[in-house]
Amino acid sequence: MTFKKRLPPIGARPGTLAIPPDSPPPRIHLFDYQGDVCTEVDVQDVTQLEPYVESTRITWVDVQGFGDEAQLRAIAELFGLHPLTLEDLTNVPQRAKSEIHPDHQLIIARAPDPHAEQVEVPQVAFILGRNYLITFQDRYFGFFDPVRERIREGLGPIRQQGPDYLLYALLDILIDYYFPVALALSEQLEDLEEYIHDNPSPDVLEDLQRIRRDLVVVRRVGWPQREALRALLVEPSAFVTEDAMPYLRSTEQHMIQLMEAVDAARDTTSGLIDLYISNIGQKTNEIMKVLTLMASIFIPLTFIAGIYGMNFENMPELQQPNSYFFVLTLMGSVAVGMVVYFRHRGWLGGGSGSRRSRGKG
Amino acid sequence: MTFKKRLPPIGARPGTLAIPPDSPPPRIHLFDYQGDVCTEVDVQDVTQLEPYVESTRITWVDVQGFGDEAQLRAIAELFGLHPLTLEDLTNVPQRAKSEIHPDHQLIIARAPDPHAEQVEVPQVAFILGRNYLITFQDRYFGFFDPVRERIREGLGPIRQQGPDYLLYALLDILIDYYFPVALALSEQLEDLEEYIHDNPSPDVLEDLQRIRRDLVVVRRVGWPQREALRALLVEPSAFVTEDAMPYLRSTEQHMIQLMEAVDAARDTTSGLIDLYISNIGQKTNEIMKVLTLMASIFIPLTFIAGIYGMNFENMPELQQPNSYFFVLTLMGSVAVGMVVYFRHRGWLGGGSGSRRSRGKG
Amino acid sequence: MTFKKRLPPIGARPGTLAIPPDSPPPRIHLFDYQGDVCTEVDVQDVTQLEPYVESTRITWVDVQGFGDEAQLRAIAELFGLHPLTLEDLTNVPQRAKSEIHPDHQLIIARAPDPHAEQVEVPQVAFILGRNYLITFQDRYFGFFDPVRERIREGLGPIRQQGPDYLLYALLDILIDYYFPVALALSEQLEDLEEYIHDNPSPDVLEDLQRIRRDLVVVRRVGWPQREALRALLVEPSAFVTEDAMPYLRSTEQHMIQLMEAVDAARDTTSGLIDLYISNIGQKTNEIMKVLTLMASIFIPLTFIAGIYGMNFENMPELQQPNSYFFVLTLMGSVAVGMVVYFRHRGWLGGGSGSRRSRGKG
Amino acid sequence: MTFKKRLPPIGARPGTLAIPPDSPPPRIHLFDYQGDVCTEVDVQDVTQLEPYVESTRITWVDVQGFGDEAQLRAIAELFGLHPLTLEDLTNVPQRAKSEIHPDHQLIIARAPDPHAEQVEVPQVAFILGRNYLITFQDRYFGFFDPVRERIREGLGPIRQQGPDYLLYALLDILIDYYFPVALALSEQLEDLEEYIHDNPSPDVLEDLQRIRRDLVVVRRVGWPQREALRALLVEPSAFVTEDAMPYLRSTEQHMIQLMEAVDAARDTTSGLIDLYISNIGQKTNEIMKVLTLMASIFIPLTFIAGIYGMNFENMPELQQPNSYFFVLTLMGSVAVGMVVYFRHRGWLGGGSGSRRSRGKG
Amino acid sequence: MTFKKRLPPIGARPGTLAIPPDSPPPRIHLFDYQGDVCTEVDVQDVTQLEPYVESTRITWVDVQGFGDEAQLRAIAELFGLHPLTLEDLTNVPQRAKSEIHPDHQLIIARAPDPHAEQVEVPQVAFILGRNYLITFQDRYFGFFDPVRERIREGLGPIRQQGPDYLLYALLDILIDYYFPVALALSEQLEDLEEYIHDNPSPDVLEDLQRIRRDLVVVRRVGWPQREALRALLVEPSAFVTEDAMPYLRSTEQHMIQLMEAVDAARDTTSGLIDLYISNIGQKTNEIMKVLTLMASIFIPLTFIAGIYGMNFENMPELQQPNSYFFVLTLMGSVAVGMVVYFRHRGWLGGGSGSRRSRGKG
Repeated sequence: MTFKKRLPPIGARPGTLAIPPDSPPPRIHLFDYQGDVCTEVDVQDVTQLEPYVESTRITWVDVQGFGDEAQLRAIAELFGLHPLTLEDLTNVPQRAKSEIHPDHQLIIARAPDPHAEQVEVPQVAFILGRNYLITFQDRYFGFFDPVRERIREGLGPIRQQGPDYLLYALLDILIDYYFPVALALSEQLEDLEEYIHDNPSPDVLEDLQRIRRDLVVVRRVGWPQREALRALLVEPSAFVTEDAMPYLRSTEQHMIQLMEAVDAARDTTSGLIDLYISNIGQKTNEIMKVLTLMASIFIPLTFIAGIYGMNFENMPELQQPNSYFFVLTLMGSVAVGMVVYFRHRGWLGGGSGSRRSRGKG
Repeated sequence: MTFKKRLPPIGARPGTLAIPPDSPPPRIHLFDYQGDVCTEVDVQDVTQLEPYVESTRITWVDVQGFGDEAQLRAIAELFGLHPLTLEDLTNVPQRAKSEIHPDHQLIIARAPDPHAEQVEVPQVAFILGRNYLITFQDRYFGFFDPVRERIREGLGPIRQQGPDYLLYALLDILIDYYFPVALALSEQLEDLEEYIHDNPSPDVLEDLQRIRRDLVVVRRVGWPQREALRALLVEPSAFVTEDAMPYLRSTEQHMIQLMEAVDAARDTTSGLIDLYISNIGQKTNEIMKVLTLMASIFIPLTFIAGIYGMNFENMPELQQPNSYFFVLTLMGSVAVGMVVYFRHRGWLGGGSGSRRSRGKG
Repeated sequence: MTFKKRLPPIGARPGTLAIPPDSPPPRIHLFDYQGDVCTEVDVQDVTQLEPYVESTRITWVDVQGFGDEAQLRAIAELFGLHPLTLEDLTNVPQRAKSEIHPDHQLIIARAPDPHAEQVEVPQVAFILGRNYLITFQDRYFGFFDPVRERIREGLGPIRQQGPDYLLYALLDILIDYYFPVALALSEQLEDLEEYIHDNPSPDVLEDLQRIRRDLVVVRRVGWPQREALRALLVEPSAFVTEDAMPYLRSTEQHMIQLMEAVDAARDTTSGLIDLYISNIGQKTNEIMKVLTLMASIFIPLTFIAGIYGMNFENMPELQQPNSYFFVLTLMGSVAVGMVVYFRHRGWLGGGSGSRRSRGKG
Repeated sequence: MTFKKRLPPIGARPGTLAIPPDSPPPRIHLFDYQGDVCTEVDVQDVTQLEPYVESTRITWVDVQGFGDEAQLRAIAELFGLHPLTLEDLTNVPQRAKSEIHPDHQLIIARAPDPHAEQVEVPQVAFILGRNYLITFQDRYFGFFDPVRERIREGLGPIRQQGPDYLLYALLDILIDYYFPVALALSEQLEDLEEYIHDNPSPDVLEDLQRIRRDLVVVRRVGWPQREALRALLVEPSAFVTEDAMPYLRSTEQHMIQLMEAVDAARDTTSGLIDLYISNIGQKTNEIMKVLTLMASIFIPLTFIAGIYGMNFENMPELQQPNSYFFVLTLMGSVAVGMVVYFRHRGWLGGGSGSRRSRGKG
Repeated sequence: MTFKKRLPPIGARPGTLAIPPDSPPPRIHLFDYQGDVCTEVDVQDVTQLEPYVESTRITWVDVQGFGDEAQLRAIAELFGLHPLTLEDLTNVPQRAKSEIHPDHQLIIARAPDPHAEQVEVPQVAFILGRNYLITFQDRYFGFFDPVRERIREGLGPIRQQGPDYLLYALLDILIDYYFPVALALSEQLEDLEEYIHDNPSPDVLEDLQRIRRDLVVVRRVGWPQREALRALLVEPSAFVTEDAMPYLRSTEQHMIQLMEAVDAARDTTSGLIDLYISNIGQKTNEIMKVLTLMASIFIPLTFIAGIYGMNFENMPELQQPNSYFFVLTLMGSVAVGMVVYFRHRGWLGGGSGSRRSRGKG
């Protein structure tokens, strides 16, 4: 739930890493490419990375899993990361942000885990240098596989561009992962709308509350990400070139569209909650009507029957030969009168039977 | 629904076009005019456009239907459009926006489809160059027919002005299409208000929710459009001249008026929802009153009758010759007493019968 | 209702006038004054105005009624108005605004029609030139009669000041017309508050909704007007002198005070709606209590009577001489026990009878 | 109520004073002090003030009561006040504001009248000159008595500082008057919270609405005052020296704290309204439960009794010697069965009796 | 509660200290450290501090408890604090803020008391000079013990850095104290969610209101603190060096994350309140259904029994030998018919029994 993040204990020294205890051992993967050249290495030991630090080609180091603090500290030292930066990378999840440091730029983003049962939005961190990009994830999410394929095959402009274009490609794909989540929530809302109409059972409301909560999660995670994209676009940085701007701008547009759709879905959710509550009230209303009808008709009749069930010795009507039939007729008249009156007041039949038909304006 | 837009698959290369699968083959139509000269061509092949690229007159190329990717790419190449711009044109619908490029300005707008059953707001894209304007729509909406007529007939200032004036004329007509939609929703609200008063049936609420959703759609689409108009007015651009400013400003005013009216209609919708819920409660209330009246009057009477229906051997009242009539009188008194008490408490008659009359302050 | 404004047809050329069809023929009235000199003319023909265009005195031309398009166009030509300005004047109602043109300043304001049945807020337009002011209203509202009197009588500083002071005097009087409307709505709210307490009948809610809607109308119209006043104060203009600033500032203050009072009234309205709904619920509650009391007391008693009304041959109690009286006593005890229990649970009497008295903290 | 302010009639000339008709005759009181010198005069006639206008010491003129227009105009002339300024002073109440004029600065503030029955927030106006301060109140509120005492006794820095420090001291004391009001409202809220728990009677809601309205009044009055304080701090003024800044800043902090507390109290009020409505619903619910229980148990039993009260000649059970006892047993079983079922469904007893105990997380 | 703060009496002179009456006598504790040198003194008398004022090392004076006004004034004089600053320190609690003075910077922060029963957020004040830091708390909260340990042990960079780093370390630890509070509230929300599902008893709502109020308290206290951190980051100050910036920025990030989580929890609270109210309504609904079922079935049956309990002499059915059995059959048919009808209308069984199973989209 909201606050259930592992925290370093109160008063821990800055720079204390709070690596998630279930984080698997790191898998480090390296791409070194430019134009037609493309090297790919599964790094076993951080020292293997050293030759590439000075490489003039584009170097992409992808670190998945934080289960070995020593290796993370070694990478941080190799690329000269500030202790607080390393904290930001490992004390997941952080708010999305973009921070410019003298030698590199730190970008923190989030993307929904496509394999999670519930809406979970783990963190992905980027260290963008002049000719390298390092990416960090605390588990093996596999977000970046399609881009990896594009680099291998040399398709599109990716091998012709710098690390900022690679950053764009990866950020853009992260946002792509939001859309299926939003779509699923949206479809659930549609389903619920039908259920509310047909069968307003109480679990509909719990489902709506859950969807609302999921939408809030997406919103809380998405807005800072949008701000971080904005910062990438407007803060002058030595690491993001003018060429990458149109791409990043289109990524920002996608994010805005997503956020607007999420807001619209929240609106719909609120509307459905109102509709549900009103339908429940409507059902109670209908049941009430039937009870009123039954009770109001039979209570006087039963009373009449009660009168003539009394055992007084002197009840002249009892001896009349036709009074039984007369009383039956009286009862029938009372019943008919009540029904007519109720129908007149609009409490009967007209309610849900005679739905007015009305076209769309 | 909200998220049901076709998406390129996750991780698609930028520049991948996501043309709607039901988009018909392109109809390309060209105007080339200035002052008294006015040429009109139904373009069969993109190469026909080439002579007009260099034309010193105003050239308006209108493309409706995206069913042929090759032709779209040919047009993009002919006018030197950025790959991301082409994506923006075809991956409909986008948020309305205005983007200045070195050689042209991209404006994306939206307008309600007048032929759609539900509120649908397709995209219209504009490429404004120094002496040309290209417009893109993914289906044959026919939004621009009235302007086409004005160009043909040379009425008004349109043939004396540049492509920015043409842009204004087209944007302005797009906003005109919003008003009938808003008017229809507004009239439906008025109808519903009467229904709520007379017959608060549960489908009223669904209609109100639908109207609210439609208003939200218009609002979500309209606000970015208003911002795009603002950007056209304030961002220095080589393609929008000072002469067109007063016209664009009046278009912006129309948009603001529309948005304010939409907001007022949303307010009314909320008020009607409250009114409906309250009326429902009121109806339940009235029904309750009748039930209470009936039950409260007859329950004691029936009890009295029950007493004298008991078969005890020693019940002295039963032998008295007048006790039957005495008991009937007692029952009558109890009934009258109850009615008087209820009327005193204001639970009877006074409720909906004696509506106080109150003038308007 | 909201969107029911006459609109030029979709795609009409800019400059098309949409004069309201019920607008009466124009009454044109002219003041030409300065210091002790004051000429007043009922203009029959626009050509009569020509001599005053070059007058060095202050010229105030007041046009009421738009029923003659030719005359309006003649005035526009005489004073050199832009076609879009003329559109703004006649396509009523527009949003309030202030627009500076090279030769004059256009101010559009709104004021509640004091003779209208419902809250209606027609438009008044001002063309402020260097030494003239033209005012336009689409019907004979008579807003300006008190100022006219002040000019005639030369009271106060009005004849010593320029056209900007006249503009102030007229704008200020327009805002004066809002206060009676606001006062009337406020008094209605007070009345309703009492009704809600005494007699929460369902039309109270409709009245509250109507008042809320009227307040929203005043608010929607008033905010742009306040912005327009702000623009008059802060935008450097050749037509508004430094001397008029303190006056316009006090007009802006009045407008702000009005808007705040309207917002407070909306707040009160929401509070009353809540109060009403709660009172309704309270009433239902009380009725429920009575029903419950009656039913719960008599249902067991009637059951007991029912037992001894059975016709079994072997019912030993029936033969006991005192069992009838014993059963009556039993019934009485049950009834008393129920009442005591209900009173103990606080469901009886204590409810609305024993209102606690509580002073104001 | 909100709009019930006396207004000059529509179209009154600017400078028309709208003095409240119940304003008592002015009491004018003068302090002239600096360091050890301190003169105090009860001014009978405005001419007495003349010698002090040119005084190099600090002069504080306090005017309470507006019942004599001539005297007010004389003071205005003596100190060279703009006609609109005089209007602002007398047409109470105005929004709080700060306005810089060439020769003086006008500050309008509000403070709750400690002697009023309801929350009333009269206006206090300040005219701050280079070495004088004039204060205006329309009745004898006695807000400033503690400061007067401090001047007389020469305690604290007040006699060493300029008129801006005096202004601060007076503004600060005005804000002090808000706190008892806020405290009273807050205590009432606490009381109501208990009442809601014990005895949700309908007047609780009216009290809550009244408190909410009072809080809104304080808020509406307080926000402009905070803005006016801000303006005093940031607008460069010849009358407020750098030395007074820290004092005014602390006054602004007090005001912000007050406003935040008012907002928190509004929040609490909303929460209590929700709680009240829910408790009412809860009570209805409990009553319903009892009715359901009684009715559901006895209705079938009464039916059984009814069967054996029928007078058919051929009803074999009637002749069986034990059938009476059998039927009684049957009835008992049905009753017990119903109770067991209801208890199983959680409709009985467990509801409000067995409150779960739960500690604070 | 909100307004229950001790206040100096109305009109008190500025500089009057409003020390909480229950504040214990001061415990003054001093650290003087740099690199390897670290002196620690339990100060008995303020004069002991004098030698350290001129110390070139970092001096941290911690004052807990305000029970001795003379000592506080002595410290203020020793370090040259403004009288208003001293007021800010002692008149707890203030809004969090950062104020730059010529010789020092005042920072006021708040942190939840971990030992308090309810959510209480006492004030901690900091005076940051060029080479000293003074901290003030009105009671012995022990917030800073972990940092004290780090200084003693010389762990981490703390002994290598200036007083601004010490300020950061202390501010950061204060924020750490918020998280357990937020976590506790969050866990209570989770518990309540389950209770709402199982057992919507009325105290759930009171708990939710209490949690909401606590969240509001945290929010009201936290936002100004976040602003104060922002001010520390952006306002140019002689006391905060560039080196401390990244640390303070990460503290600000923590605060933002906390505030977002608090907002999310408020959202959840609102959702749970809705859910609770709806569940209550649902329960009422179910009970209503049972009552309706029972009443509607048995009322007609009882009526039939009543008819044949009448004592008319001439009732032909009574003599028929099989009519008793016929009537019993009739009653059975009526009962079955009613049940079938109710089941058809969806009022029976299908309600809560046949929960549809629906997977997660």
